[in-house]
Amino acid sequence: MSQPARQLHLGAFLMGVGHHLAAWRHPDVDPSGAVSFAHFRQLAQLAERGLFDALFLADNVGLPAAPPSTLSRGGLPYHFEPLTLLAALAGVTERIGLVATVSATYLPPYHLARKFATLDHLSGGRSGWNLVTSGTDWEAQNFGLKEQLSHQERYRRAAEYVTVVKGLWDSWEDQPYLFDKDSGRFFDPTKLHPLNHQGEYFSVRGPLQTGRPVQGYPVIVQAGSSEHGQELAAATAELVFIAQQTREGAQAFYRGLKARVAAHGRDPDQVKILPGVLPVVGRTATEAEEKFAALQALIDPAVGIGLLSGLIGHDLSGYPLDGPLPELPVTEGWQSRQQLFVELARQEQLTIRQLYQRVAAARGHRTVVGTASQIADQLQDWFDNEAADGFNILAPTLPHGLADFVDQVIPELQRRGLFRTAYQGTTLREHLGLARPAHPRAAAA
Amino acid sequence: MSQPARQLHLGAFLMGVGHHLAAWRHPDVDPSGAVSFAHFRQLAQLAERGLFDALFLADNVGLPAAPPSTLSRGGLPYHFEPLTLLAALAGVTERIGLVATVSATYLPPYHLARKFATLDHLSGGRSGWNLVTSGTDWEAQNFGLKEQLSHQERYRRAAEYVTVVKGLWDSWEDQPYLFDKDSGRFFDPTKLHPLNHQGEYFSVRGPLQTGRPVQGYPVIVQAGSSEHGQELAAATAELVFIAQQTREGAQAFYRGLKARVAAHGRDPDQVKILPGVLPVVGRTATEAEEKFAALQALIDPAVGIGLLSGLIGHDLSGYPLDGPLPELPVTEGWQSRQQLFVELARQEQLTIRQLYQRVAAARGHRTVVGTASQIADQLQDWFDNEAADGFNILAPTLPHGLADFVDQVIPELQRRGLFRTAYQGTTLREHLGLARPAHPRAAAA
Repeated sequence: MSQPARQLHLGAFLMGVGHHLAAWRHPDVDPSGAVSFAHFRQLAQLAERGLFDALFLADNVGLPAAPPSTLSRGGLPYHFEPLTLLAALAGVTERIGLVATVSATYLPPYHLARKFATLDHLSGGRSGWNLVTSGTDWEAQNFGLKEQLSHQERYRRAAEYVTVVKGLWDSWEDQPYLFDKDSGRFFDPTKLHPLNHQGEYFSVRGPLQTGRPVQGYPVIVQAGSSEHGQELAAATAELVFIAQQTREGAQAFYRGLKARVAAHGRDPDQVKILPGVLPVVGRTATEAEEKFAALQALIDPAVGIGLLSGLIGHDLSGYPLDGPLPELPVTEGWQSRQQLFVELARQEQLTIRQLYQRVAAARGHRTVVGTASQIADQLQDWFDNEAADGFNILAPTLPHGLADFVDQVIPELQRRGLFRTAYQGTTLREHLGLARPAHPRAAAA
Repeated sequence: MSQPARQLHLGAFLMGVGHHLAAWRHPDVDPSGAVSFAHFRQLAQLAERGLFDALFLADNVGLPAAPPSTLSRGGLPYHFEPLTLLAALAGVTERIGLVATVSATYLPPYHLARKFATLDHLSGGRSGWNLVTSGTDWEAQNFGLKEQLSHQERYRRAAEYVTVVKGLWDSWEDQPYLFDKDSGRFFDPTKLHPLNHQGEYFSVRGPLQTGRPVQGYPVIVQAGSSEHGQELAAATAELVFIAQQTREGAQAFYRGLKARVAAHGRDPDQVKILPGVLPVVGRTATEAEEKFAALQALIDPAVGIGLLSGLIGHDLSGYPLDGPLPELPVTEGWQSRQQLFVELARQEQLTIRQLYQRVAAARGHRTVVGTASQIADQLQDWFDNEAADGFNILAPTLPHGLADFVDQVIPELQRRGLFRTAYQGTTLREHLGLARPAHPRAAAA
């Protein structure tokens, strides 16, 4: 089902010096990049040269409660606070979108609405908000709580949170400024509206101090794929990042979410679904395989177990490395991710060691290893078969892995007509083909 | 009492298109700059060319609860959220310090500590935090409260807040990174320390995800000059902005605060006091007077009354414009600022109209009008007589008023040996001559 006009959307998911768990130990990699702004500036400009739709930064709001000796063997994936980092990168880029993860659980919605409105104005309409909820006790304990909220309550609260944030973005109508020096009217007072929200969790007067974002709303992004997460995404998201290992799994998710979106009365084409992909690119297939093997050989078992324990929300350090994954209790944390790993281990009868080796590369995302042409084939296969509207690219090492993708895979995608050869628009919405939300009063008029 | 080695410290206080209340109506001014990043980038680069110690951005967290028709006649002074704006400006400047006001009242301290640590790393050690508390009901109502906390409670809470924030900045010792690929040690685990703060208002586990700031701590700035504000400043501040109209008033404040600092066991020289000054610069004294008169003539009476009402925390719109200031109740808001205006009106027997005309220029700060040489005389007089360690410069219009200061007054100060002719250091602490705080463990060793 070829659709000539349809093109891939690509996110550049930046994390430290690479997504592979052992990236920082690779001989080509300078580990100090993980804590260096110059490194991120280089990555942003590289991704912009590659014409990516957006940069993407993940986040959580705490350092995991593991012993320092364990933590010290991994990198520091979220050293910089993403919104602050993206604001700095807005000043040194021109066109690329800027998507920051910010949890709705511990930041008052007024602050979030104002910060994203500011970023959207600063960047000329390039911002996106990846809405997550915080699902660990070690995050809750940085904010005065003993333990996290329940999964259900987090999502219930997040749904109201989005309503408040959008309401604040709408507290100014578009183009409110008159700048009329003679009459002394700086703005048109009829275009300013307090919010006066009184809800179950939030009470917010408004209006916002910052005018309506350039994009109306920053692009709303989500990555949760639990039942609650999918319902929230169907109701509110415009860009969805997912972790799927197989085309069949991705298709089931893709079709299911698009159907949910339609059930919410929204246009399924206005929600773009981007599975994560970790590409290991070689000039030959052999070179690619060797690159990947070199990284896998550098994985520290203690870090692998730590990663796996974190991802599934259960400490696995006491179990035999070469034994099976034990039965696990359902936690209030990342339910969908946990399920993914448990199913993978069961289906392929993996030991704990084999499982962490599998997830160490891409933390549950799909790994593709090969030449630019082979990787393009794999991306196209999902794109043409209702498994993806594009991909979130997790470079195994940074900057080298991203440079390989930009210099080798993107030209191949362009040759196939699957990817832009120049930015057509100036805003992230324009890059993604998403409509600019009209102001409720304009929409009603 | 000439001190040859001592030099002025200068802040460039940026606000919209200028501090004068009628700035946006001036024929030379483009009012759209108030909502334009390009405008702020130009200002930041201009201030850096002028070798200012720092940019300074004020803030509050709400739009005043005045009728939209009243608000529409003023500008929008806090359109951009300051920390986000400063992060963007960090990417387009090299040496100038970046001071953002962030209220300690409605942002969890973990977020604040992380954002400033990030800004400090991004900017190579150029950040400063102006610690304020939020003193209005219209701000409280954006954060789930009906009315503001009491003045005393806000400051009590702020004192604990600073302790938490500094504790989080100290959750990593300096230089924790090993980057040892062979042993698999990314950092030294003995340099990581959870905070485990359990206090009256806050409970925060830590550690922070972001390493100790380049400067140890961002420079701590304060501007409150009430009794509680001065006590907090004496205990914690390193840079203090004040609003004083007379040399005698500034001297009393300066000497009083330095004595309080000493009483807290701190070195008074490690707290720099910068009164605000609005300079109106002319090539001749007459040109300067005419410039000022032109701005004063543009003040909208409704906006003047609105400003004055906001500054003193009491609605004055019902009183005769040409009558005296009425007796005012003491509010929980900005007590020190209110007192300043009441005393000014009483001493000079000003009507309400005369009072708003007086404060419209600089919102309670001192206005100096004259040639570069005359302005330098006035600054030097305070600097040499225990009234100031430097000044926070409030340009009446932006960018023109700042360009006048950079191109005319700064060269005059340099000729007198009162101001640097090149940046000597790279961090804001170095510009200000402030010591870098040692980590508590290093200090104890």
